Amino acid sequence: MSDARPIGIFDSGIGGLTVVHEVFKRVPAEQIVYFGDTARVPYGTKSPKVVQHFAMQDVRFLLQQNVKMIVVACHTVSSVALDSLVKTFHFPILGVVLPGVHAALKATRNHRIGVIGTKATIVSKSYETHFLKLNPEVQVFSQACPLFVPLAEEGWLNGDITKLIAEKYLNPLKKHQIDTLILGCTHYPLLKSVIQEVLGNGVTLIDSAEETSRAVEEKLAREKIQNPGNEKAEHQFFVSDIPHQFRDVGERFLGQKFDHVQQVDLESMDMDTKFL
Amino acid sequence: MSDARPIGIFDSGIGGLTVVHEVFKRVPAEQIVYFGDTARVPYGTKSPKVVQHFAMQDVRFLLQQNVKMIVVACHTVSSVALDSLVKTFHFPILGVVLPGVHAALKATRNHRIGVIGTKATIVSKSYETHFLKLNPEVQVFSQACPLFVPLAEEGWLNGDITKLIAEKYLNPLKKHQIDTLILGCTHYPLLKSVIQEVLGNGVTLIDSAEETSRAVEEKLAREKIQNPGNEKAEHQFFVSDIPHQFRDVGERFLGQKFDHVQQVDLESMDMDTKFL
Repeated sequence: MSDARPIGIFDSGIGGLTVVHEVFKRVPAEQIVYFGDTARVPYGTKSPKVVQHFAMQDVRFLLQQNVKMIVVACHTVSSVALDSLVKTFHFPILGVVLPGVHAALKATRNHRIGVIGTKATIVSKSYETHFLKLNPEVQVFSQACPLFVPLAEEGWLNGDITKLIAEKYLNPLKKHQIDTLILGCTHYPLLKSVIQEVLGNGVTLIDSAEETSRAVEEKLAREKIQNPGNEKAEHQFFVSDIPHQFRDVGERFLGQKFDHVQQVDLESMDMDTKFL
Repeated sequence: MSDARPIGIFDSGIGGLTVVHEVFKRVPAEQIVYFGDTARVPYGTKSPKVVQHFAMQDVRFLLQQNVKMIVVACHTVSSVALDSLVKTFHFPILGVVLPGVHAALKATRNHRIGVIGTKATIVSKSYETHFLKLNPEVQVFSQACPLFVPLAEEGWLNGDITKLIAEKYLNPLKKHQIDTLILGCTHYPLLKSVIQEVLGNGVTLIDSAEETSRAVEEKLAREKIQNPGNEKAEHQFFVSDIPHQFRDVGERFLGQKFDHVQQVDLESMDMDTKFL
């Protein structure tokens, strides 16, 4: 058995392109349809109710593209909306939280794990909930880092300012002697080097994008829905807005140039809610 | 003649509450209906097309509240959408850009004026356009400061990090020897003290919120639509999302406690577009 349909991946904006980058590497025969809700980004400062509402629209849009599986590349959506998406759509939908949790459990030796993410992700305690189910001995120390996203988008990936901000957010976790840190937001891998510098080499950083691509590969194999094709897959990128610096910033996240980016009209997305 | 209907004020989020605060002080008999689009904030990183689309919905919502006049408390909307709003609705709509421009022209002595704002505001060159019309001798030096909004929302109003970021953004303006700086984003007045510290006391800071409240007072008098009442006005606050820290942060901007905040359903706002 096999399935030539594409994999849908969505995020609140462009951050999810780090997940696309890893999926490209791991399952190169798969075709990707990406949707970034750049008109309403960020989700991480918003309430669960609003994030759920937006996520429903994002999933509906991808379903119309005839995808075989959906990856929620956004930690905020994975934290506050994944359960309701799975319940609503009865469709294979993977999030980024659980793959990160599994990887952290493999990596930790002292069972003291740090999690950094958006306000919405941290307040949701989604990581704590998963850890508690899988290994109640683990102690989780979490910290919202609201300045990290604008720093990554501004391209200030190093330097004094970034270092000082990283110290302010991460020093409390360091004091708790974590030995593993989950980068619980798609933007954070761009700040990996300064985060590692502040925490020291004794702390293992978990990049959820990489872990998620592994989960995608496993799921495709388990369900026997791999793409049988050998030719170079053609990908599609959709966004709800194309602001000034979109291409530059997006290519930094994707690690390569876009073939083609299409803008989706928000009004038409809203109209689509009618047929649910 | 007089008019007891409320004044509508809207913003992409909570920043516009700084304008409400000034309007309260200047015309205390007026009733205010505020709308903050907290579900889709920020607007300043988005394209003119998307900002215009959101702003149309915001205005329609306020018109349903039977307002007599609308104040666009958002610099991004005032920069990229005010003209199309005025053309579409044939209704008294004031922005925050022009009041700031008038105040800067009064304040400057060397005709070298700085403007700081969001990416969308700066790229739009809305301030340059107004200055050119009113006094072509003025030289405008502008700078987008994307980190200032998250700094203000995080409450990091002072300290090393904020100072370093302010220096990075403002030093180029300082080199251009500006003597006047327009704070072209509703969040920036919260960072006034560090901005003044970096630029020195020789530079006059223009707080558009204060100037806009003056424009509102003049408009009410000119059109003879002041509120005739003497009793304490009752205000209404609507937002499209009530995230975790909304009340704390909002009260910091408003300078007082909210009586009552109501959440507007985004779906119903989208439905409203049907009757245009």
